[in-house]
Amino acid sequence: MRENLLKSLWQRDAYAVNGWLSLPSTFSAEVMAHQGWDSLTIDLQHGLIDYQSAVGILQAISTTSTVPLVRVPWLDPAIIMKVLDAGSYGVICPMINSAVEAREFVAACRYPPAGTRSCGPIRASLYAGPDYVDKANRTIITMAMIETRAGLGNLEEILSIEGLDAIYVGPSDLALALGCEPQLDPTEQEVVGAIEYILARAQKKKIVAGIHTGSTANAQKMIRLGFQFVTVSSDVRLLVTKASEVLEAMGRPRPQPSILPGERTVLTSAPSSSNYA
Amino acid sequence: MRENLLKSLWQRDAYAVNGWLSLPSTFSAEVMAHQGWDSLTIDLQHGLIDYQSAVGILQAISTTSTVPLVRVPWLDPAIIMKVLDAGSYGVICPMINSAVEAREFVAACRYPPAGTRSCGPIRASLYAGPDYVDKANRTIITMAMIETRAGLGNLEEILSIEGLDAIYVGPSDLALALGCEPQLDPTEQEVVGAIEYILARAQKKKIVAGIHTGSTANAQKMIRLGFQFVTVSSDVRLLVTKASEVLEAMGRPRPQPSILPGERTVLTSAPSSSNYA
Amino acid sequence: MRENLLKSLWQRDAYAVNGWLSLPSTFSAEVMAHQGWDSLTIDLQHGLIDYQSAVGILQAISTTSTVPLVRVPWLDPAIIMKVLDAGSYGVICPMINSAVEAREFVAACRYPPAGTRSCGPIRASLYAGPDYVDKANRTIITMAMIETRAGLGNLEEILSIEGLDAIYVGPSDLALALGCEPQLDPTEQEVVGAIEYILARAQKKKIVAGIHTGSTANAQKMIRLGFQFVTVSSDVRLLVTKASEVLEAMGRPRPQPSILPGERTVLTSAPSSSNYA
Amino acid sequence: MRENLLKSLWQRDAYAVNGWLSLPSTFSAEVMAHQGWDSLTIDLQHGLIDYQSAVGILQAISTTSTVPLVRVPWLDPAIIMKVLDAGSYGVICPMINSAVEAREFVAACRYPPAGTRSCGPIRASLYAGPDYVDKANRTIITMAMIETRAGLGNLEEILSIEGLDAIYVGPSDLALALGCEPQLDPTEQEVVGAIEYILARAQKKKIVAGIHTGSTANAQKMIRLGFQFVTVSSDVRLLVTKASEVLEAMGRPRPQPSILPGERTVLTSAPSSSNYA
Amino acid sequence: MRENLLKSLWQRDAYAVNGWLSLPSTFSAEVMAHQGWDSLTIDLQHGLIDYQSAVGILQAISTTSTVPLVRVPWLDPAIIMKVLDAGSYGVICPMINSAVEAREFVAACRYPPAGTRSCGPIRASLYAGPDYVDKANRTIITMAMIETRAGLGNLEEILSIEGLDAIYVGPSDLALALGCEPQLDPTEQEVVGAIEYILARAQKKKIVAGIHTGSTANAQKMIRLGFQFVTVSSDVRLLVTKASEVLEAMGRPRPQPSILPGERTVLTSAPSSSNYA
Amino acid sequence: MRENLLKSLWQRDAYAVNGWLSLPSTFSAEVMAHQGWDSLTIDLQHGLIDYQSAVGILQAISTTSTVPLVRVPWLDPAIIMKVLDAGSYGVICPMINSAVEAREFVAACRYPPAGTRSCGPIRASLYAGPDYVDKANRTIITMAMIETRAGLGNLEEILSIEGLDAIYVGPSDLALALGCEPQLDPTEQEVVGAIEYILARAQKKKIVAGIHTGSTANAQKMIRLGFQFVTVSSDVRLLVTKASEVLEAMGRPRPQPSILPGERTVLTSAPSSSNYA
Repeated sequence: MRENLLKSLWQRDAYAVNGWLSLPSTFSAEVMAHQGWDSLTIDLQHGLIDYQSAVGILQAISTTSTVPLVRVPWLDPAIIMKVLDAGSYGVICPMINSAVEAREFVAACRYPPAGTRSCGPIRASLYAGPDYVDKANRTIITMAMIETRAGLGNLEEILSIEGLDAIYVGPSDLALALGCEPQLDPTEQEVVGAIEYILARAQKKKIVAGIHTGSTANAQKMIRLGFQFVTVSSDVRLLVTKASEVLEAMGRPRPQPSILPGERTVLTSAPSSSNYA
Repeated sequence: MRENLLKSLWQRDAYAVNGWLSLPSTFSAEVMAHQGWDSLTIDLQHGLIDYQSAVGILQAISTTSTVPLVRVPWLDPAIIMKVLDAGSYGVICPMINSAVEAREFVAACRYPPAGTRSCGPIRASLYAGPDYVDKANRTIITMAMIETRAGLGNLEEILSIEGLDAIYVGPSDLALALGCEPQLDPTEQEVVGAIEYILARAQKKKIVAGIHTGSTANAQKMIRLGFQFVTVSSDVRLLVTKASEVLEAMGRPRPQPSILPGERTVLTSAPSSSNYA
Repeated sequence: MRENLLKSLWQRDAYAVNGWLSLPSTFSAEVMAHQGWDSLTIDLQHGLIDYQSAVGILQAISTTSTVPLVRVPWLDPAIIMKVLDAGSYGVICPMINSAVEAREFVAACRYPPAGTRSCGPIRASLYAGPDYVDKANRTIITMAMIETRAGLGNLEEILSIEGLDAIYVGPSDLALALGCEPQLDPTEQEVVGAIEYILARAQKKKIVAGIHTGSTANAQKMIRLGFQFVTVSSDVRLLVTKASEVLEAMGRPRPQPSILPGERTVLTSAPSSSNYA
Repeated sequence: MRENLLKSLWQRDAYAVNGWLSLPSTFSAEVMAHQGWDSLTIDLQHGLIDYQSAVGILQAISTTSTVPLVRVPWLDPAIIMKVLDAGSYGVICPMINSAVEAREFVAACRYPPAGTRSCGPIRASLYAGPDYVDKANRTIITMAMIETRAGLGNLEEILSIEGLDAIYVGPSDLALALGCEPQLDPTEQEVVGAIEYILARAQKKKIVAGIHTGSTANAQKMIRLGFQFVTVSSDVRLLVTKASEVLEAMGRPRPQPSILPGERTVLTSAPSSSNYA
Repeated sequence: MRENLLKSLWQRDAYAVNGWLSLPSTFSAEVMAHQGWDSLTIDLQHGLIDYQSAVGILQAISTTSTVPLVRVPWLDPAIIMKVLDAGSYGVICPMINSAVEAREFVAACRYPPAGTRSCGPIRASLYAGPDYVDKANRTIITMAMIETRAGLGNLEEILSIEGLDAIYVGPSDLALALGCEPQLDPTEQEVVGAIEYILARAQKKKIVAGIHTGSTANAQKMIRLGFQFVTVSSDVRLLVTKASEVLEAMGRPRPQPSILPGERTVLTSAPSSSNYA
Repeated sequence: MRENLLKSLWQRDAYAVNGWLSLPSTFSAEVMAHQGWDSLTIDLQHGLIDYQSAVGILQAISTTSTVPLVRVPWLDPAIIMKVLDAGSYGVICPMINSAVEAREFVAACRYPPAGTRSCGPIRASLYAGPDYVDKANRTIITMAMIETRAGLGNLEEILSIEGLDAIYVGPSDLALALGCEPQLDPTEQEVVGAIEYILARAQKKKIVAGIHTGSTANAQKMIRLGFQFVTVSSDVRLLVTKASEVLEAMGRPRPQPSILPGERTVLTSAPSSSNYA
């Protein structure tokens, strides 16, 4: 079975730089896959992407050695199994609130007896090789998002679920849950503290910790803290940020204040490079 | 945030004329959006439309000021959150049978602390503006369908759910539930009585009442009764009705008796204009 | 080979009522195909449809016995041969201006030695049967549009081209060419006269004459004159016309004066039924 | 309402040969529909197909008299009702583990009072005819998959659910559930025994039994045992098998050992014809 | 008819900042349309976009006031007329080599008697208004690319064609034609000289001059020289450039030397901001 | 620049086994690409594929080392340049009848000064590498089809065109042109003789000769004769052939005599394996 390069990075205590795909476009995905990201996550939750679009994007990523992951929209075995059959090498599941949910999530990613995944890896076996069914359980990554008060409260039990490889922090939702401003790079102490708490518990349990960030500065900080899977920005944000730099320089600032998709911060000017990259 | 013109209509006690989209086509949607409907509802339940098609249709509607709504296929947080992120200004949820279901539905449409919606309004913030996350909870419309015996029985509790803006009557399913013929413009007393009952309870609770109709005559009657959101026909029915008028005139009646999609009534001749429009 | 019902109608001196497809949607096409049109023409010229969309529409029409035709965007052997391979039972070619062009058009529709069509009827042989290559030359309809001054001037020679089955009048372009208002149902004498001239010459040469119309009244008039292939309206116009009737009745006239696509006449009110159907 | 030819076959104790569609392509489906299968099943679970693709495929199948079925990805009323509205003449539901699940599945396929299906057969009524709503409950096939230990354990209760027409055996998942190698044509005694047990219980209850197979030899054997609905191979497997025969003959064996999608058996050489067809 | 804001800018001697779309994605186009570009050009020549994709992109752009233009793949009346019918407010035609070609290009964009455009503005009249056919000839922009030796040689005659609004310089092709390195921001004297020559002749003839550039620095220089329509970068280049800045900062430089699509310069490191924006 | 493995095969006097893609499906293409074909040709002429579908298929093929080629529908610089920009490593052009046409074809595939190709290899440079523009002229394969009487007559001059790499024989069209039955594996002496004549002339001029075949037996024979590029069957034919073998074995012969797409021979029974593979 094709190696999961992300697991290999983690096994030697290195970090992975993850890119994020929100555009339902196979070509922007293929362009991203050629840039050097360790992995690319196709976002079926907040991205404008559904399953059928994701299949084409998985094909596009497979033209390179970049590891393909999918964030599913919800804890739903149907879509989890479908993206795995389509060749995703890991699943990020949002809003895991309890051990029960974490167990259901992991089970959907594992063939019996470890789990309940149904057998039919139609594209996965093309991508990964003929021994896919034998080795998938130890190759496919399961990553549970911790982003609610309940998730925080049940963190210990969630981290104890057999077969869970990693957790992933969604700072915007975590902030909202804690009554703070949703920010990709949180500054409020309550959110920062929660993030550090999650990291510490995960490290204790030998569970990889990952996080979504909005800038390279914050991403680097998170890596220094110990996160081993760090997302920086997304295809849409990269496009918006660079376009706004160009238009600012050309005397065409954005006509009305607008926000980067998924963020509440108003971008009144082009982001400074120190803040972004 | 862009105003929700439907809410504005309701606040001044006016009614809205809603169009219905069952075709998975961005151009028929754009054509419809230019005709003067107050709102257009993209039907993901019985329409031949899925999420990815709906995204294109939302873009097409956004070329005008027509308010875009989506009827989701089922009470499922994943699809509810996805269509909101894609820019729908309201959600119609079918088959709400209890207060528990109504609460779950509303929660999926509201950011914390009012609800559990996850934060990532990728297209919604483009469409609505940079303050989307701040104002979405009071702008987005939640509309629960009352169309089962259970829904009727639990109506009082459903109408009491904080954050529910409106209810919507599906006459065909309501009729089936009551053991009657499914009709878009019901004539059986039991169905008519149930509709009047729903309207009365909603008005008492200051909840907007909406209803699906099959003709302008019935739609006008419903408005006179007090419904403030009235759907007339659908893109497919409009096409079928006019085509059958043309073909009748040209000596080519429909080769075999057929029904308008979604209705049991056999159209043996072109509908008279008094009956339809 | 599956019979071409249009040719059969013509052979017994009957007329065909043709529907027109401008929407790139397989389902609106399937709905139209169930209404009773003798044939449906997929418009690749002014419709919002390209080849790949047309393939799906041809499949949708093939669920019924309605005859599928395609209007190609231009006199181009590549697209003519592709729509025939995809199963179209006839081709309408716009802007035929001379005998040379007519001959090139017909040649692209006929296998050698009658023409230059390349052999590979990939879907046509599924639709039509195993003897397609043997019988296509006498089954497939070729229809040249006469709609320019040059086309009028060279009409006699065009009508003499071996293998041309029919001509088709595009009233809007013909009117523009003659310096008149483009109208689907022309009233200016110069245009009316040109149409009658084309019909008379075609009848003399035993070539079927067809015409595009905007109303059943005019369509019936054209049939009485002798046209044997009459298009009434289009999917988009049917939708627009009925929607505007509904919205007029509901007190929501179209917000700004607009035209039916493809026509210059402003629709300030819903078309009267006498005018339309 | 259009007859369900599959039910007719079963009523006269005949068997049906079912084809399997995993490709999200309307043309490969149309090609398959012309080959002579009694029915074709669109696989939304392990096939690379979603709802919107399935709609086009249903249209393609409807160009013939082949019966269209859909395997849904999961026990989810939303997708079950959507594929029925789109014209599927039966639903195969994976992983039915209990009588409760079987009842929920059947209910989603039946209009009240027999079930809870919502009324809006938008394409189904085009395909089936104007009396669809009246007759759908006795025409549409419900087929529950038995492929888990729980499903085996609760078989008796599952088979007793009113309105369940058939059960379907998924040998790969069944084998995995029993701790055996997943094989399309099982040879391990435990799996073979379970299959025979399922068949015997179904026959006792007058429930049709169906099964997935990987070769005509095994399919024929299953028919002799009493299975009345037998799937052989799939579009992808047919393509792979024939391509590998051709390439073997041309001196280009598959570059690396690979498996047929959905199967663990390594194909080191082209399958012998005796083993396959 | 909706005003052509580009023409208005030019009439008051201002310049337009044009964005460039190479991705076949309606959402990236909608995102771009919200950034503040005066116009966006959909590239059907070198972009990965065909007609049907362009229709969706035109809809996406129409959610804003950004002016939509299309670069067609070739001087072909079929595609020119189709993109105009779909609502493009201007056409850029590549490789215009002579007055004959320029005249054919302009004719395809103008209704008779000024040209030969066929009448059927199916989406254009929705976008532009009911008087589209009357006013399109003076609203739609025609822009001929000068990028070959023949085009340079026949420049004077090309610029004299009645109805040509603007010319557009493609620096890469112009450089190749002159035996130089293809560069988006040319530095070789022969290419620079040719560009200045084209500008001078266009200005003399009161024809607007436009040019493609690869950086804001060069774009600003071109504006200072007198170009009134300046393209900076493209959606794909914006994405690549920002991604490479991010990955450089994160210690993941692009794995193998690669070029920005459409350019020969190797990007061995992230472009410096002074060089780009 | 990525090596063109086909050229490498030819340079060491080996032959290439080419697969043929007629299905507009990225997954069937990806499956085919994993089977071991030296190259795969995407057929835009008789396949049901257009440009936008071809882009996805090129991505799917790029997940392997199989060489991607495209047969364009016609000698048209627009589509030739577009498929090359999209990453095709060669172009097969149908119906080349003269040296003038051959020269125009080759010119469209070569950058100046060797040809007239416009510069913008948007996906090609991702696939091939940063030096694409420098090396494309000597890497991209040009293959002209000889399949008409004119092409036969002008063969000598066609073979003399500088930059033409190969010719390709289309036996069906060649047979039709010679007044014979169209067959994929011709048996009539006139056709066989013409094929041998073409091969001999090509070999004399050191031009690679390729041919389309319908069986491995004939393909092997062609290789022995000296053809170095041999197509066997197509995705659709592979599917049809294997399905018909399965259905024959299962007692379900094809309901009505049908032909393999693109062929006139009636398949009344499953093809014998000796005849096919």
